[in-house]
Amino acid sequence: MNRNDVTELIIETKVRKGITWAQVAERVGLSKEWVTAGCLGQMTFTAAQAGVVGEVFELPDEAVRWLQVVPYKGSLPTSVPTDPLIYRFHELVSVYGTTFKELIHEEFGDGIMSAIDFKMDLQREPDPKGDRVSITMSGKFLPYKTY
Amino acid sequence: MNRNDVTELIIETKVRKGITWAQVAERVGLSKEWVTAGCLGQMTFTAAQAGVVGEVFELPDEAVRWLQVVPYKGSLPTSVPTDPLIYRFHELVSVYGTTFKELIHEEFGDGIMSAIDFKMDLQREPDPKGDRVSITMSGKFLPYKTY
Amino acid sequence: MNRNDVTELIIETKVRKGITWAQVAERVGLSKEWVTAGCLGQMTFTAAQAGVVGEVFELPDEAVRWLQVVPYKGSLPTSVPTDPLIYRFHELVSVYGTTFKELIHEEFGDGIMSAIDFKMDLQREPDPKGDRVSITMSGKFLPYKTY
Amino acid sequence: MNRNDVTELIIETKVRKGITWAQVAERVGLSKEWVTAGCLGQMTFTAAQAGVVGEVFELPDEAVRWLQVVPYKGSLPTSVPTDPLIYRFHELVSVYGTTFKELIHEEFGDGIMSAIDFKMDLQREPDPKGDRVSITMSGKFLPYKTY
Amino acid sequence: MNRNDVTELIIETKVRKGITWAQVAERVGLSKEWVTAGCLGQMTFTAAQAGVVGEVFELPDEAVRWLQVVPYKGSLPTSVPTDPLIYRFHELVSVYGTTFKELIHEEFGDGIMSAIDFKMDLQREPDPKGDRVSITMSGKFLPYKTY
Amino acid sequence: MNRNDVTELIIETKVRKGITWAQVAERVGLSKEWVTAGCLGQMTFTAAQAGVVGEVFELPDEAVRWLQVVPYKGSLPTSVPTDPLIYRFHELVSVYGTTFKELIHEEFGDGIMSAIDFKMDLQREPDPKGDRVSITMSGKFLPYKTY
Amino acid sequence: MNRNDVTELIIETKVRKGITWAQVAERVGLSKEWVTAGCLGQMTFTAAQAGVVGEVFELPDEAVRWLQVVPYKGSLPTSVPTDPLIYRFHELVSVYGTTFKELIHEEFGDGIMSAIDFKMDLQREPDPKGDRVSITMSGKFLPYKTY
Amino acid sequence: MNRNDVTELIIETKVRKGITWAQVAERVGLSKEWVTAGCLGQMTFTAAQAGVVGEVFELPDEAVRWLQVVPYKGSLPTSVPTDPLIYRFHELVSVYGTTFKELIHEEFGDGIMSAIDFKMDLQREPDPKGDRVSITMSGKFLPYKTY
Amino acid sequence: MNRNDVTELIIETKVRKGITWAQVAERVGLSKEWVTAGCLGQMTFTAAQAGVVGEVFELPDEAVRWLQVVPYKGSLPTSVPTDPLIYRFHELVSVYGTTFKELIHEEFGDGIMSAIDFKMDLQREPDPKGDRVSITMSGKFLPYKTY
Amino acid sequence: MNRNDVTELIIETKVRKGITWAQVAERVGLSKEWVTAGCLGQMTFTAAQAGVVGEVFELPDEAVRWLQVVPYKGSLPTSVPTDPLIYRFHELVSVYGTTFKELIHEEFGDGIMSAIDFKMDLQREPDPKGDRVSITMSGKFLPYKTY
Repeated sequence: MNRNDVTELIIETKVRKGITWAQVAERVGLSKEWVTAGCLGQMTFTAAQAGVVGEVFELPDEAVRWLQVVPYKGSLPTSVPTDPLIYRFHELVSVYGTTFKELIHEEFGDGIMSAIDFKMDLQREPDPKGDRVSITMSGKFLPYKTY
Repeated sequence: MNRNDVTELIIETKVRKGITWAQVAERVGLSKEWVTAGCLGQMTFTAAQAGVVGEVFELPDEAVRWLQVVPYKGSLPTSVPTDPLIYRFHELVSVYGTTFKELIHEEFGDGIMSAIDFKMDLQREPDPKGDRVSITMSGKFLPYKTY
Repeated sequence: MNRNDVTELIIETKVRKGITWAQVAERVGLSKEWVTAGCLGQMTFTAAQAGVVGEVFELPDEAVRWLQVVPYKGSLPTSVPTDPLIYRFHELVSVYGTTFKELIHEEFGDGIMSAIDFKMDLQREPDPKGDRVSITMSGKFLPYKTY
Repeated sequence: MNRNDVTELIIETKVRKGITWAQVAERVGLSKEWVTAGCLGQMTFTAAQAGVVGEVFELPDEAVRWLQVVPYKGSLPTSVPTDPLIYRFHELVSVYGTTFKELIHEEFGDGIMSAIDFKMDLQREPDPKGDRVSITMSGKFLPYKTY
Repeated sequence: MNRNDVTELIIETKVRKGITWAQVAERVGLSKEWVTAGCLGQMTFTAAQAGVVGEVFELPDEAVRWLQVVPYKGSLPTSVPTDPLIYRFHELVSVYGTTFKELIHEEFGDGIMSAIDFKMDLQREPDPKGDRVSITMSGKFLPYKTY
Repeated sequence: MNRNDVTELIIETKVRKGITWAQVAERVGLSKEWVTAGCLGQMTFTAAQAGVVGEVFELPDEAVRWLQVVPYKGSLPTSVPTDPLIYRFHELVSVYGTTFKELIHEEFGDGIMSAIDFKMDLQREPDPKGDRVSITMSGKFLPYKTY
Repeated sequence: MNRNDVTELIIETKVRKGITWAQVAERVGLSKEWVTAGCLGQMTFTAAQAGVVGEVFELPDEAVRWLQVVPYKGSLPTSVPTDPLIYRFHELVSVYGTTFKELIHEEFGDGIMSAIDFKMDLQREPDPKGDRVSITMSGKFLPYKTY
Repeated sequence: MNRNDVTELIIETKVRKGITWAQVAERVGLSKEWVTAGCLGQMTFTAAQAGVVGEVFELPDEAVRWLQVVPYKGSLPTSVPTDPLIYRFHELVSVYGTTFKELIHEEFGDGIMSAIDFKMDLQREPDPKGDRVSITMSGKFLPYKTY
Repeated sequence: MNRNDVTELIIETKVRKGITWAQVAERVGLSKEWVTAGCLGQMTFTAAQAGVVGEVFELPDEAVRWLQVVPYKGSLPTSVPTDPLIYRFHELVSVYGTTFKELIHEEFGDGIMSAIDFKMDLQREPDPKGDRVSITMSGKFLPYKTY
Repeated sequence: MNRNDVTELIIETKVRKGITWAQVAERVGLSKEWVTAGCLGQMTFTAAQAGVVGEVFELPDEAVRWLQVVPYKGSLPTSVPTDPLIYRFHELVSVYGTTFKELIHEEFGDGIMSAIDFKMDLQREPDPKGDRVSITMSGKFLPYKTY
């Protein structure tokens, strides 16, 4: 058994039992964004959190242990994703990548927005012309320093 | 002359004259995110907007005409970006791509967040532990329909 | 079991029982284009539709549940397809890609033809010099807006 | 001078003089789809057609000769296009590729839809919920034969 | 079971029983080139032909049905083949590709040599300095037409 | 000046003066296949042959010297060619690659068909259903030997 | 002029005048590692630092301004470097990558070693069996946090 | 069983029994860096070392034999790693690659830092602003010689 | 069973029984270079040779038959090898590739060194400063001929 | 001017003046293999050697200085070379790569053959059946050591 097997077990049980990510997040007591990423093999659970996830998805003990091991991250099978929903995010990076770069440097100087000290929140934004997906990202600015 | 030449002209003048994107956006009367993307060859200006951009960057008439032509989009030289700031966004798509997918489908069903009917806002978020970059994205949800 | 397993089950049963896609579409009550794409793991069925597909292909319950889960889309093993029939479509995008772009922008301005709010119809077009494949595609135009 | 230079000349003059592809097609007396593809370096003009194109775009004699030489075809800089409009067509091939294959084989048997003995027509389709792009493609079916 | 499994079954039986492709072709009553390609999963057999192939290779009924389904074509694991014999053909396309293009266009105008309405014959050509492989290919010329 | 510059000079003059490859081959006294490949930068001319080519294309002395230098071979810009005519040959290698391998090994044992001790002849094959391109290739069989 | 042009100017002057990186670093008053990276287009100088670099390399004013603009980072022409010295570092990441991961996670938990809040020192380490290159890297550990 | 199977066995037992790499290294009597790399399939153990590793991880005899066979090295599934921790090292090579090259050549002349006659040490570096990862690498300089 | 399975069987038995390639070569009566390549799935054995190999590695009859079938050659999982020993040979081709080309053409004219009519010998070369690997390659020169 | 420009200057002069690599090597007083690699931008000359090369090829002073700067190595435009002569060496690595690995490890244990402490000699080997290319390579064995 490895971490990918655990992720597949979770997905299969989710489909079989009709569990939602929101329910899992509530049980774990954290955001749905972080908990979903963890269940999909991208984050590391504490023993207590892993225990809850194990209960929800009826996982064997070995799987619960794997949830506490830092995974090899990266959730996509190809570097340019083929799935249309995920591709749109790839396209935003392609089209707006240099814009992100220019505006962050203009505001903060040389450095990056951390993808580690990072959190995000995804919400439905009601709109009479068709509801919208609203995503708020917050990442610490990390400056390059001279030495 | 082509659109890339216009982008290079704009960048060269920006460096030479010390113009900020915020100043250009104010002159054009639109958000700094959209205006920067446009100046970097990713969006299409109206004649009036192009005229303003042309004045700010002292562009020749031919360049002003090019700003009104729909560009071939995509601002990055490689599909996996080497620049650390831009790579972090690529990494977010790689690590959180399946999470975006799961949560949007859980909330909305099958479909995508539009990268066309889309807007975003990038702000400095003051934080005693180190200021943060805050990005709010809003894209219309487009459902797949049966036919 | 995952969605790929369901697709393989469907294909194997189709070969074994000699079912046609047109028959499945008629049973589901939708176009043959959408139903085939769904059976090949590219679209999401409602519970009722999945039930019909499950009956036609004698699928187990778990497979019927998987048909209602949004799949990771993309039906081809390589980004440049090796199969001659599918490659011809790739070639059309390669040869006519900039023509699509120029003519749609000339008619509509900056934006795209949606691949989500999209439908298509594939027919045999009788011709004395050899019958032809006729494909009619219809996708909503989505304009880029300033903000 | 080579064919790419001619394409760039045409585009530059088009931007400078505000010519539309529809106007060029009318002057040449053929469809806007074929004429645009030809002007973008994907088709071969006869001497008479090349002469008309040369007049419209004020091309030098050498360029007019190049328009009559069969070009090295393929209009895109990368095999997976970064431009959002063109990418949507790539996505259609990725998502619907196996559907095209199944339905054409179901109707015609083993073979392909020709991308050479091929024509297409692109129109605006008015729609109260937002106008649509309508594309009709017609390609001769070419059967694989035993030998 | 899928078509690849059938190909592997055929190869394994061929090795075990010492069957030659020439023998299979004779039994089927077609050329060794087409029959070999079919057995390797690149062509589609009729029911009668599949029955013969099934007998020769002692295939189960399901495999015989798969031989009559149009396969996803492309017989090589990488786009640049590593096998020296096959690479030499790749090299011929790389070195002589533009020569093929120039000479066919010089003789026929714009268009292609069909790879579908195509046949070939491979023979040993005795030569005192060392026997040679002689391959004769014949493909219909398909002209691009204006529309 | 390098060999690519010489190839471009030759092509430009060919377009400007309307020279055919058949005429060049006749002047050089060799096959049109070899001479075209040489003019396209894939073969090496003797001093006498280079002199003739130089006269035909009005090349400067330096270019005539370059024609006698062994070129870095490979005539295509990408390993999977985008040009439809050349792609069909790539497709033949992809679809028939394993067939070439099986039949040559069945006839000759382990080894290859040489792409160096190789010649070919390309002809128009008249056919009432549409003329065909006929290509005859002949390459020496080179056996792998034990040692 | 762009930042690449500035890097080329610096290299050309360095070769012409025989300047060493150690000399430049001493003039700038920072480590040779950071200063070299900056001169090679990977770091951003302050106005004062850029002035010194400009004097050392006799740069025009425009180049001095470019040194103060955040560059698009990434110093290598291919993602797998061909240069033997640089490749050895790529190999270390390939061979020891999972070891870095295991040991950092064992010591610190889930997170990364920052490549931004990072410094390094490269020294000659005398050794009777042949001198050694000694590199000390220090990067802040950034933990993934739950949210 | 092959070496990859042995690596997976080791990882599974490590997770199940909660063993640390530091403990294994102590048992083997070598550095944690080398021992971890060996357990991950990148180094070759002597019979005695393999015996110890086999005891710690309760490996079968065949696995212990495999630990003494030189492995096919390279621990990452893609040449550009997706895992954020490992990617940061890839980024260091990308950003600082030319800096490594310049400074090593300035100090030593033409040659490389060996990745074979190499050792490294990874430590926690306490820091009030957040602890740091400290890595010291030492590789023999190997000069290119004339001949 | 296929040829890869046979190679894995051979390797597993080699590890289990501690057989050396030199011993196998002696038993077969050919060079260790050719025999090793054959056992690794790159060469074709005669019935007699295969019988010996089968005895040495205790292979089943089916495996012995596979050893006599021409394999699909190419022994590496990626076109740029990650294993340091094998990469050094890739690097030699990268660094010295154009040197091989220049010197062989200077001596022989246009043509290649055959990789088929080829043999090699690998020996330990004692050296007080550290023993060396000595490899002698001999390949027939094959000239390009005009036709 | 950069090192590539120097290489092109050398090649152009070599073609123009008909210089051979053997002549250059004799003038420099080193092997033709090393000197050719150096002239092709892969090795670093001393001041005295560079002076000789500069005289032979009538190089300007700046070029002579560049010959003394360590170049960014790697002489081929693609990682899989298209040139037939160079490809054969790539093929040898592909086919014999695992054989090199097995035999060197069998003789020396874990380690590599150095591509830095390396020399080679390329000779014509007369043979009544056709002369052969003989290449002798000698590289120091570098063992992996434990630490």
